Amino acid sequence: MSNTIGKMFKITNWGESHGKAIGVVIDGCPSLLNLNEKDIQLDLDRRRPGQSSLTTQRNESDEVEILSGVFEGKTTGAPISLIIKNSDAESKDYDNLKDVFRPGHSDMTLHQKFGIRDHRGGGRSSARITAGNVAAGAIAKRLLRELANVEIVGFVKQIKDVIAEVNLDSVQVNQFTQENIDGSLVRCPDKKAAAEMKITIEKAKAENDSVGGIITCIIKNVPVGLGEPIFDKLEADLAKAMMSINATKGFEMGSGFNSVLMKGSEHNDEIIIVNEKNVLDGKIQTKTNNAGGVLGGISNGMPLIFNVAFKPTSTIGKEQKTIDMNQNVVELEAKGRHDPCVLPRAVPIVEAMAALVLCDHLLRHRAQSIFLNKGNKENKGNKENNGGNHEN
Amino acid sequence: MSNTIGKMFKITNWGESHGKAIGVVIDGCPSLLNLNEKDIQLDLDRRRPGQSSLTTQRNESDEVEILSGVFEGKTTGAPISLIIKNSDAESKDYDNLKDVFRPGHSDMTLHQKFGIRDHRGGGRSSARITAGNVAAGAIAKRLLRELANVEIVGFVKQIKDVIAEVNLDSVQVNQFTQENIDGSLVRCPDKKAAAEMKITIEKAKAENDSVGGIITCIIKNVPVGLGEPIFDKLEADLAKAMMSINATKGFEMGSGFNSVLMKGSEHNDEIIIVNEKNVLDGKIQTKTNNAGGVLGGISNGMPLIFNVAFKPTSTIGKEQKTIDMNQNVVELEAKGRHDPCVLPRAVPIVEAMAALVLCDHLLRHRAQSIFLNKGNKENKGNKENNGGNHEN
Amino acid sequence: MSNTIGKMFKITNWGESHGKAIGVVIDGCPSLLNLNEKDIQLDLDRRRPGQSSLTTQRNESDEVEILSGVFEGKTTGAPISLIIKNSDAESKDYDNLKDVFRPGHSDMTLHQKFGIRDHRGGGRSSARITAGNVAAGAIAKRLLRELANVEIVGFVKQIKDVIAEVNLDSVQVNQFTQENIDGSLVRCPDKKAAAEMKITIEKAKAENDSVGGIITCIIKNVPVGLGEPIFDKLEADLAKAMMSINATKGFEMGSGFNSVLMKGSEHNDEIIIVNEKNVLDGKIQTKTNNAGGVLGGISNGMPLIFNVAFKPTSTIGKEQKTIDMNQNVVELEAKGRHDPCVLPRAVPIVEAMAALVLCDHLLRHRAQSIFLNKGNKENKGNKENNGGNHEN
Amino acid sequence: MSNTIGKMFKITNWGESHGKAIGVVIDGCPSLLNLNEKDIQLDLDRRRPGQSSLTTQRNESDEVEILSGVFEGKTTGAPISLIIKNSDAESKDYDNLKDVFRPGHSDMTLHQKFGIRDHRGGGRSSARITAGNVAAGAIAKRLLRELANVEIVGFVKQIKDVIAEVNLDSVQVNQFTQENIDGSLVRCPDKKAAAEMKITIEKAKAENDSVGGIITCIIKNVPVGLGEPIFDKLEADLAKAMMSINATKGFEMGSGFNSVLMKGSEHNDEIIIVNEKNVLDGKIQTKTNNAGGVLGGISNGMPLIFNVAFKPTSTIGKEQKTIDMNQNVVELEAKGRHDPCVLPRAVPIVEAMAALVLCDHLLRHRAQSIFLNKGNKENKGNKENNGGNHEN
Repeated sequence: MSNTIGKMFKITNWGESHGKAIGVVIDGCPSLLNLNEKDIQLDLDRRRPGQSSLTTQRNESDEVEILSGVFEGKTTGAPISLIIKNSDAESKDYDNLKDVFRPGHSDMTLHQKFGIRDHRGGGRSSARITAGNVAAGAIAKRLLRELANVEIVGFVKQIKDVIAEVNLDSVQVNQFTQENIDGSLVRCPDKKAAAEMKITIEKAKAENDSVGGIITCIIKNVPVGLGEPIFDKLEADLAKAMMSINATKGFEMGSGFNSVLMKGSEHNDEIIIVNEKNVLDGKIQTKTNNAGGVLGGISNGMPLIFNVAFKPTSTIGKEQKTIDMNQNVVELEAKGRHDPCVLPRAVPIVEAMAALVLCDHLLRHRAQSIFLNKGNKENKGNKENNGGNHEN
Repeated sequence: MSNTIGKMFKITNWGESHGKAIGVVIDGCPSLLNLNEKDIQLDLDRRRPGQSSLTTQRNESDEVEILSGVFEGKTTGAPISLIIKNSDAESKDYDNLKDVFRPGHSDMTLHQKFGIRDHRGGGRSSARITAGNVAAGAIAKRLLRELANVEIVGFVKQIKDVIAEVNLDSVQVNQFTQENIDGSLVRCPDKKAAAEMKITIEKAKAENDSVGGIITCIIKNVPVGLGEPIFDKLEADLAKAMMSINATKGFEMGSGFNSVLMKGSEHNDEIIIVNEKNVLDGKIQTKTNNAGGVLGGISNGMPLIFNVAFKPTSTIGKEQKTIDMNQNVVELEAKGRHDPCVLPRAVPIVEAMAALVLCDHLLRHRAQSIFLNKGNKENKGNKENNGGNHEN
Repeated sequence: MSNTIGKMFKITNWGESHGKAIGVVIDGCPSLLNLNEKDIQLDLDRRRPGQSSLTTQRNESDEVEILSGVFEGKTTGAPISLIIKNSDAESKDYDNLKDVFRPGHSDMTLHQKFGIRDHRGGGRSSARITAGNVAAGAIAKRLLRELANVEIVGFVKQIKDVIAEVNLDSVQVNQFTQENIDGSLVRCPDKKAAAEMKITIEKAKAENDSVGGIITCIIKNVPVGLGEPIFDKLEADLAKAMMSINATKGFEMGSGFNSVLMKGSEHNDEIIIVNEKNVLDGKIQTKTNNAGGVLGGISNGMPLIFNVAFKPTSTIGKEQKTIDMNQNVVELEAKGRHDPCVLPRAVPIVEAMAALVLCDHLLRHRAQSIFLNKGNKENKGNKENNGGNHEN
Repeated sequence: MSNTIGKMFKITNWGESHGKAIGVVIDGCPSLLNLNEKDIQLDLDRRRPGQSSLTTQRNESDEVEILSGVFEGKTTGAPISLIIKNSDAESKDYDNLKDVFRPGHSDMTLHQKFGIRDHRGGGRSSARITAGNVAAGAIAKRLLRELANVEIVGFVKQIKDVIAEVNLDSVQVNQFTQENIDGSLVRCPDKKAAAEMKITIEKAKAENDSVGGIITCIIKNVPVGLGEPIFDKLEADLAKAMMSINATKGFEMGSGFNSVLMKGSEHNDEIIIVNEKNVLDGKIQTKTNNAGGVLGGISNGMPLIFNVAFKPTSTIGKEQKTIDMNQNVVELEAKGRHDPCVLPRAVPIVEAMAALVLCDHLLRHRAQSIFLNKGNKENKGNKENNGGNHEN
């Protein structure tokens, strides 16, 4: 398996759903960042199970403990080890799944790839292990905020056929805040749609079935210059991070699949200057934002906007046919606790993965832009254009 | 910049559109693979410009030369250096673009990130540099074919609003072959749609405009077990590779964004056994293939199926407003040669990137499955389950 | 900081000397390896403090706990998280060091690099954190043993000016076993030298001073073919691993610095065949082993032999002049518990780091030798030449 | 094979001794560095064969060509591809070696690892391929010089039993300059020793034999703070880089193996302040430099000093016994052109590898020290402490 992501800001995730604990090690976090467990707990609470009637009833407090890397309230540059103990694991619920390959799950592929698997609660492939990513992401978010006031806001845009009406024009984008979004049980900013989404989820639950949807993520105040073509384009690394989340089936940046229906003359975002300042001040904008904030794999100072598609939860109460390890055809009814729709709880996961990617690229850009700063200083005396303190 | 992709099977791409040459170094290719320049040239010819009236008129033979890593017709395990000389570069066509930021292009972001850019023909951000990836991908394809008979077939599924009718049921999938696809000028297997696509592209060209579309990629005979959760899931690495291609805006695996409209009971692919053999023989299949060949980030033996969305070409002949480096508003008309639609030529690029990802994961899986083989041998005497010679 | 080492078999180390715990995450360990805590504890006990009057009196049981990655006594392919709680931390002993830069320590450089440091017990730079590496190394050793019967034996060759007399001729090498070595308090196989070493260490301790020395490491049954030139030569990766251990100042492979005094005709190891079998059977040996088991960065089937130089412990009771953070010249007397000589306890650390490097290269070689195996099978039906099951 | 080194400043080396060309791709070089082919050629000329009667008579002009990454005399941030054509390859000289495993060479291990090898002139394992590293190192040197005035000077300290007398006290270190060193045919600053070294080499040549030696490398003006414990300590990465050079058998940092003979109280370098300025100004020094410029894996502002041991050249004209691929015992006399002693030509190779390591760590440190700078600015308004413009 490969459980590390990032190059300069790296995290290593470990743990199983019903093991003793889950956790994450963050390596490469700059020193002198203010950090305590509360900062991290906030995002974990947004992800944890049992938040509402719409989510799994597994009751985990998901309390995070910092084991290393922080001294007197600040990061030291040493690896930050976070641990979250598993408390409400009811492994017995899964005994009947020991030999069965659940449809839509990785039971079969894990068995074939490794010859062994921890079947209890989905083991390593449980969505529970994304808690580690959310915890690490909380640190990344804090770093992005302190350095560049970056703000990451995800929300549920669609549940099955219920689509939120939202205006993502650049001027409107500031309306979306975590506070607003979290006010909604399904994390959808369109109240009417949110009400329908709730009904859709409850209906699926009543039918022992499940539904999927789309999460939109908006990132404001992204410094110009993040992303490293040709392979580590910002959207490429975002796509990878999103497609590594459980149950995701699609990713699109800006106009995404809809771009296909447009002509070039419609799709190209006109570049404009919004004030009189020098080009390098970054006050260049685009009139529209079909690009979703990236040009050629590099952030252009506009809000990053992308969508992530989640399939309907694979675990359903409804009877399904499948096979077991001995090739017998079996009928299966899920008994473990699960979410009829993962979207509301997936919002902080999407945000966390985005934060990790951005943070990594912020540090990487800083490393590489060493002469750019120097040049600026000597020639113009204006602001540095590195990741850290660039203003847009 | 970051111009290396892959972990065990790695490529490093270099070059600019109007520099002396472009090229790629492949490191980690196993020894004893039969290889000569013709193998590579075939795919380069499928990508090269000037193939038809639908593509750019730049005339590059794109002749590849192997500079290292091959001895007496076989790879030696040493890095394989490939070079393609630039011959038909008309840099003067781009003089007027030296100071201008073209909409939809990375001129602006490159300038802001690096403080300098080679503006000639798009420099490093030209789609021309994907030729290196196609060349490297041809080697990966050959390796996949020799080891596991893997076959990668991409085709154009949609151009603007023209959508091909194709049946991707597992039994139908074998109908798609490179031969069939390449028989079509637009690389679309649905003849009726292909004709309409041609008209759509020609119309865009006539209007000095451009169109985008969707490429579908099918991969047959993929060994079971490729992909490394939780971060290097097969679909995550495919998404990254695809989103690193110029002009891509979206990626979806299997059912993709359509999965959102389905219920879990509809989406879950029923697992079935198609013959009487032992489970480990890999004769397990799924009735449907909404998953697109992956479960939990690991290939399940079904065909891999994914879509990639391409925006309409950013370079258009039509007049557009933008700004230059000195903040002047300017009007721009592209003069360089360009494609009104990149899709037909992008098919081999998509295939190449997919081949690189698969090849890397094949080697990685082989490394990690060391006891699995051993177990098999001792206990059952049956076939090895490693990447190399597994049959599905 | 950079706390991950390895490419396919990777470990991430975390923790501080006086934090809540220290630990390590092993990622990339193949599945189906038998593993329990006892296997790991054995090596930890060989490293832990308080073993004898010669070592620090800090009393840590160093009990390891497996938190993930193992199911029903076998590895699952998931990351293995190990934790060791700190129990006998007496942070108060270090209060006087809060603002002082101890000579020979990283207090000063950590302060300059990070602007903050956990001064308690050396914090992150304490040798205590090598316990994580020893724990991970124990898993690597087990894997190497199960797959290829690899045996790693380190011993103290020199303490200050006391040099053990040992015969490292290939035929003699089997005399060195962990059992023999661990029978000696200083882990030196030459009893006479061992007695003198003990006196040398006790004398240093009595003088509130410290001494250094050399550890020799011998690795038997190394599969042929490990190491990846040109940069990841086996000796290059061993050198890096050894030079990352606290207090090391030098590394030499085989003849090492002594090779300088020889002529080429003396130094070249004559290649011989020791039986009548086929070349590929690996029964090729060299008459002498000046190479130390590597040719061109690749293991040649002879025992790996290398030396590591350790400086005298920097922490001494003797009064020393230095400065504090406010630029005052201060006099310093160490009060914390420490080893007058780290060599005896460093033996398992050297072995562990060597095991990690070998394990990584074993998996890497297996990935890359995919056609080699195939060829062998088809053409000759003889044994596979991959890392896993090659016999020398 | 693994032919890439570095994390942020990365190089990928390719080519064989008697192939069409050799080359290197540098990825991660910051933009806006002034660069032309002459800068690179200077170091290549210091390494190239045929410099004097003491070196191989192969006559290669080793003319480097920049194929990408440089525009109008400056780097663009894109990968820099360098190519050096092979011109004076006399492959026929090696026909008799096709099936023979030369003692001390990797012929045997390459054959066993890969099942195939390019035997002409040593193929991939020829020291010729270090020319790529020297070329890349020239760029790294230029970057280090421009950013921090770092100066790297290597020299031959010992040939066989002839040892140069040199004083490496910090105050004396400035006497060593490339100009001085290159004035000597054997690149030894001690004229008397240099004369004896020349005789020693000539004697070996006359006897159809070879000799080895030690190169010392001094690096001045190294910024404080480079190196990333616990695994990527500066000395660990230097050790790896040096041990990847052909024919190296040992590495030692500062006092190295001699540290073993000292007591802690002797070895610890006393920390002193050399002027009245603030601690963070980096005007802290150590009285002695046994550490060799690193404490805990991080540069401390003192000159870096390390030694590298080279074995006597394996290729000798003298008759040697060995075996061929068919297990026949054969007698071998080298016919190809070769160096009786590689040390003089290896000096620029050692320097280049050191430059690459430093450059990589300079960029890495810059990425990670993001709050450190900020803190400095806000609180004190003094100089940034990042890699780029820190003064010691």
